[in-house]
Amino acid sequence: MAKFLTNKDENYAQWYNDLVIKADLAENSAVRGCMVIKPYGYAIWEKIQAELDRLFKLTGHVNAYFPLFIPKSFFTREAAHVEGFAKECAVVTHYRLKHDETGKGIVVDPEAKLDEELIIRPTSETIIWNSYKNWIRSYRDLPILINQWSNVVRWEMRTRLFLRTAEFLWQEGHTAHATREEAVEETNKIINLYAGFAENSMAIPVIKGYKSENERFAGAHDTYAIEALMQDGKALQAGTSHFLGQNFAKAFDVQFTDKTGKLDYVWATSWGASTRLIGALIMTHADNNGLVLPPRLAPIQVVIIPIYKSDTDLEVLTATALKIKASLESKGISVKFDNRDTHKPGFKFADYELKGVPVRLALGPRDIENKTVEVARRDTLTKETIPLESLNDYIPKLLDDIQENILKKARKFRDDNTFYIDKWSDFIKTLDDQGGFIMAHWDGTPETEAKIKEETKATIRCIPFDSPEEDGKCIYSGRPSKRRVLFARSY
Amino acid sequence: MAKFLTNKDENYAQWYNDLVIKADLAENSAVRGCMVIKPYGYAIWEKIQAELDRLFKLTGHVNAYFPLFIPKSFFTREAAHVEGFAKECAVVTHYRLKHDETGKGIVVDPEAKLDEELIIRPTSETIIWNSYKNWIRSYRDLPILINQWSNVVRWEMRTRLFLRTAEFLWQEGHTAHATREEAVEETNKIINLYAGFAENSMAIPVIKGYKSENERFAGAHDTYAIEALMQDGKALQAGTSHFLGQNFAKAFDVQFTDKTGKLDYVWATSWGASTRLIGALIMTHADNNGLVLPPRLAPIQVVIIPIYKSDTDLEVLTATALKIKASLESKGISVKFDNRDTHKPGFKFADYELKGVPVRLALGPRDIENKTVEVARRDTLTKETIPLESLNDYIPKLLDDIQENILKKARKFRDDNTFYIDKWSDFIKTLDDQGGFIMAHWDGTPETEAKIKEETKATIRCIPFDSPEEDGKCIYSGRPSKRRVLFARSY
Repeated sequence: MAKFLTNKDENYAQWYNDLVIKADLAENSAVRGCMVIKPYGYAIWEKIQAELDRLFKLTGHVNAYFPLFIPKSFFTREAAHVEGFAKECAVVTHYRLKHDETGKGIVVDPEAKLDEELIIRPTSETIIWNSYKNWIRSYRDLPILINQWSNVVRWEMRTRLFLRTAEFLWQEGHTAHATREEAVEETNKIINLYAGFAENSMAIPVIKGYKSENERFAGAHDTYAIEALMQDGKALQAGTSHFLGQNFAKAFDVQFTDKTGKLDYVWATSWGASTRLIGALIMTHADNNGLVLPPRLAPIQVVIIPIYKSDTDLEVLTATALKIKASLESKGISVKFDNRDTHKPGFKFADYELKGVPVRLALGPRDIENKTVEVARRDTLTKETIPLESLNDYIPKLLDDIQENILKKARKFRDDNTFYIDKWSDFIKTLDDQGGFIMAHWDGTPETEAKIKEETKATIRCIPFDSPEEDGKCIYSGRPSKRRVLFARSY
Repeated sequence: MAKFLTNKDENYAQWYNDLVIKADLAENSAVRGCMVIKPYGYAIWEKIQAELDRLFKLTGHVNAYFPLFIPKSFFTREAAHVEGFAKECAVVTHYRLKHDETGKGIVVDPEAKLDEELIIRPTSETIIWNSYKNWIRSYRDLPILINQWSNVVRWEMRTRLFLRTAEFLWQEGHTAHATREEAVEETNKIINLYAGFAENSMAIPVIKGYKSENERFAGAHDTYAIEALMQDGKALQAGTSHFLGQNFAKAFDVQFTDKTGKLDYVWATSWGASTRLIGALIMTHADNNGLVLPPRLAPIQVVIIPIYKSDTDLEVLTATALKIKASLESKGISVKFDNRDTHKPGFKFADYELKGVPVRLALGPRDIENKTVEVARRDTLTKETIPLESLNDYIPKLLDDIQENILKKARKFRDDNTFYIDKWSDFIKTLDDQGGFIMAHWDGTPETEAKIKEETKATIRCIPFDSPEEDGKCIYSGRPSKRRVLFARSY
């Protein structure tokens, strides 16, 4: 299996695509730019969903569902928003098909033209704030802390599985608050929640920070993002949280009476994370043998493979394997016993490596005799022989170990590839030679940022929250700067 | 609150609509025919999803995700399917908007016209079988047991919240098998799963049976359905499972090599249940005071309301309430302590009745003295005073009791309103006077069924699996019949 993967150091993009296809995560569909998320890929998404959903609910959020369709006119209400989102989108113009003249084909019925076109949501601020208008009268109706799990469509011309597709799955939070302070606090709370999820569950270290004006969400006052570094030296934005100010409240005329009886516009946030996270997961941890899944998001955490020659062997092995399985499952660990007789152990080993299963147990007749089992870990590809009786203590610790180890490894890679650069020529050279995160001074103007992007394809990924004040000169213009910002080429 | 509900015996349709709105389950959106599912309604859907998903996985199914868009031509491949689904649908014709001449509005960009229109999925057989074509080569690739949770769109002209909306949420299973027998077995397994879910979780008794040819899914050989009786005497189809034969495999050319090396078309099933189930839940159990939720699907199972005059009282009550809450939660019961000081207890009582919370605990200073609590059950509206110390045993039993009781009540209603009728005049009179399920003989022809529908608006809901062989005469044509079928007017 794994041998069919392109070498990651030779062609990273091809390696990525091979891996997504061969590990059975997703594939392109018959519809341009839309993917099919296959069961194994979807199982990872379900794990991501379950944990994010738990964190949202812990912090007081509830789920709801708003329409897929947005009337075209809604987009024109918020000036910046329409520029960002109402351009490349799927437009519904008709609501009926009919037989053509041959009677065999079907055509759009010209009489079933909509008075106003409907846009498939690229994001739901407009349709949601149009609802909030009727839900909010007084401060007693606030805050509203709603999240939605849904599909969205952005008509991308160049697509890549998980990373950029016309349709993708995501969650979008849309909250309404009585004060600016409360909305800013929510924006912060969520970016911290995303960062915690990325590090704790995905084992992906991230930099939290503000987006520059150029990179802000269309319609936001401020966008906070978490940025991760992929193995090819490019950055990937893994989640964003927007402080929307009163923009959408004004666009949809959503006012409330505060405690003193005064009328004011409502303050808003929105935030989202998507199936793109699966791309981040792959590009942070996977290797030339395939996926490396963090135990906390692995659909199968432990696979047991019997090594046998005769059916009698298999019977004995099966009894032991099922005992191990039941015992680990009672500890909340997901275990698969692969007793297929259609495939050889070697094939199975390679297949589960490709699929990134964190721990593999191989069980042969000699193991039964010795009361041992061979334990292989996916992250280091090392093997150990462990007494059967200690397995129940050993495996949970091993899973924690793997989770910790791949985070540590990813953090080391990120740190090793973060460069503090003060000369323009070094800036260019670093980007071309190795990529990575570049911390450099910037004069704070959109013009400079645009020129840097034009000349190097690098953008400001974020202005890190924890970037210290430091006098310096802009890497491009030489003008004075008070802090470094994070540059990188990105997905 | 509840006093604002229309009386259910005076105007059932209005009562239903009032209830959906006032219990905060859903509302109509700005987009014609599309609803907003509000947090409380969505929380019920999450409960339904979680349990169905658990049952699907227990029976070996996995989830995946296929595109929202279906190329128009896909529909023409299966002749019956196109008739059923490709007519009233949302059609995407363009992929870009641009500024109009004024620069203020936006219009569809005529240059961004799609070569082939895309249909928003009304159901996904075609796009899924187009994928299965590439997934299936040999019997080793079978069975495929996939389910998808998604939104679908059917352009309905007359919509009603949850019951019939242009966009709705559902799950759709799509399985592929090597033999007819296996596919039929799957079709059966799922209709039994749905029926079990309806009775055990929703407390809705259902009749399982075959659909007549007229009522079959477009493209199916056989459709099995579960039919429930609503309080107004109309039937509601709560889930369907289709044996598709080799129709879709032939339409999309999906063949496999069997164990003997012979090439054959793959056998298929599909099955679905939707947010419509929430409508069934309401119309089976709710009353003039509001919703009555089965404990197993209630987002809040127990609400605790403090009755107090002074802040000192509230402090004492809060301490006890939080103890009760923690203790019940440790038994897996979801509890809400409503200590809002903005609303009076009477208001809260009515509000939780409206929302169908199964158990209400009212706690006042005298209860603290006596070490008791007042327990009210939503289904019977009766109250009891219970010693605090026995609450932990009492509540789980009470919840089971309520679950059982509302199922029993619904079953009694269904049985009391099921009529065995042999005369056409009685058939008409029963439908007009009281509705209900009518078991009557039918000559087996689509023509007779169509005429009955035309004259009475009643259709054959199903041919019950357990309808015994019995010689009789068709209620309409007088021709010989071998068994009774289930007629009703329906949603």
